[in-house]
Amino acid sequence: MTSFPRETRLIGLDWGSSSLRAMLIDEQGQVLLTRQSTQGASTLKGGAAAFSAVLDELIGDWHATAPAILACGMVGSQHGWREVPYAACPADASALAAGAVDVDWRGRAVRLLPGLRCDTEAGPPDVMRGEETQVLGALESAPELAARSCIVMPGTHSKWAQVIDGTVRSFATQMTGELFAVMRQHSVLGRLMPADPAHDLLSFAQGVRAARDHGELGLPHQLFAVRTLGLTGRLASEALPDYLSGLLIGHELRAGLRARDADAPLVLLGEPALCQRYAKALDLFGIGPVQVLLNTAAAGLWRIAQVARGVL
Amino acid sequence: MTSFPRETRLIGLDWGSSSLRAMLIDEQGQVLLTRQSTQGASTLKGGAAAFSAVLDELIGDWHATAPAILACGMVGSQHGWREVPYAACPADASALAAGAVDVDWRGRAVRLLPGLRCDTEAGPPDVMRGEETQVLGALESAPELAARSCIVMPGTHSKWAQVIDGTVRSFATQMTGELFAVMRQHSVLGRLMPADPAHDLLSFAQGVRAARDHGELGLPHQLFAVRTLGLTGRLASEALPDYLSGLLIGHELRAGLRARDADAPLVLLGEPALCQRYAKALDLFGIGPVQVLLNTAAAGLWRIAQVARGVL
Repeated sequence: MTSFPRETRLIGLDWGSSSLRAMLIDEQGQVLLTRQSTQGASTLKGGAAAFSAVLDELIGDWHATAPAILACGMVGSQHGWREVPYAACPADASALAAGAVDVDWRGRAVRLLPGLRCDTEAGPPDVMRGEETQVLGALESAPELAARSCIVMPGTHSKWAQVIDGTVRSFATQMTGELFAVMRQHSVLGRLMPADPAHDLLSFAQGVRAARDHGELGLPHQLFAVRTLGLTGRLASEALPDYLSGLLIGHELRAGLRARDADAPLVLLGEPALCQRYAKALDLFGIGPVQVLLNTAAAGLWRIAQVARGVL
Repeated sequence: MTSFPRETRLIGLDWGSSSLRAMLIDEQGQVLLTRQSTQGASTLKGGAAAFSAVLDELIGDWHATAPAILACGMVGSQHGWREVPYAACPADASALAAGAVDVDWRGRAVRLLPGLRCDTEAGPPDVMRGEETQVLGALESAPELAARSCIVMPGTHSKWAQVIDGTVRSFATQMTGELFAVMRQHSVLGRLMPADPAHDLLSFAQGVRAARDHGELGLPHQLFAVRTLGLTGRLASEALPDYLSGLLIGHELRAGLRARDADAPLVLLGEPALCQRYAKALDLFGIGPVQVLLNTAAAGLWRIAQVARGVL
């Protein structure tokens, strides 16, 4: 049996669609232990029992260790352990803590945090689950961002969050990563691409510049260039995925930078290689160098636990 | 054995990726007989022999009927019967006829027409194969379009062709139809959609207006609304495909209308139901009513045969 440091205060669960990360966090907010699983919320069938069983298997020996268990991410979605209604923007750590819903893990409460919802003037609402906790973690890790910042989280569904006074004021999703995957795997654009292409930063930059300088031609038109540049031999097939990536990230930046508060420092948060790619693209838009933060879910869970001490 | 009218002058082949239409055309350009096959150019393996065999099967009894055989479409592509280099814009019927390449069908020449290539200031070239013949057919069917027109051919890869003085000056492809199919079938957006949705013109219009009024937010962002509108119950799942369709067509129009010559009358050419959808979207952009032309490949092949009488 493992012995745990006495000061363990929080079990944090970062439980997304495709993975789960469990963290033991001490009184100072430091992560003492981390365990990972590929049993993401969208991989589980069988409702509450299935989620509970995953915890038994992954952290059964942690069951009695910490006074509180806090979870963020898709575990609180429609197809998760239990659906937790979205909190509405603007929202801070207290608002998230207040919106949490408990589920039972062998007699212990696991507190599922809500996602965030942003209603916009343009009409359709936007939503996130998990990234709101990352944002609060960023403010914990880099307190100078709390006053005013634009936090960009690249990914399958990139999120651009606008922060003022420790509060997420608004945010917007961009389906950049999913567009890349889907167009590469299932559209005519993928036909000319090799299975395992070389990384080609020049072609990436060429794609970014196409979006930056001629984006008004529209993405549905500019995407076709991935095919014609390959077909006419102007780009090697190995370079086409990076051109596509640059084009899509360029369109994301074009729209995201237009919508953001230009006075707010922009930071990148997420997987380092992908953040470097965004930093390179931002540079081509004349922005940077920008700060890059790693996954801040632990810090976010810790921050929410702090403000909710009475509740937890 | 079929007997053929004596005045048969041309066998026209409209041979695309997924289908083949063979037409017997008389001295006046009228189509006397049509036969169809699903053996499109991209369905055939086995090179020239396979293409020749398709003609044996579909129109073997036409072999001796007409003095000329003219083919347009993907049959002249890299993976077609034989690759015919693209003609360059600006191009008229003579330029297309001059760029044709012969292949042999049991001792007879089948003249494969080139596609068109458009080199643009923005960098990447654009290409079409088959639509150039449709455009020339439109000018044959509606001669008032020859002086100046913008011919929009909606589809998997929509084409916007700018015509001046009987010449295709330039054109642009928009991957609207493929984006719709791929996002619906392979992205998270399709998950909330029923297999066989109702047609919902109100949701279609809502998607068009989102692109028209807020398109600067970017397609990668606006696409996510298809998910959030469904997730939050603001749109019924049956209505989501039409919202997606409207959003994509709206982005196509936004870019296409900005790039076109505003003095050139705009016409739609293609499948009637899809053209009606585009006409509805154009109406929301304040354009119309617009003329709708059906498939004009026969008229285009006839026109090219006329200007190339010496050659054919």
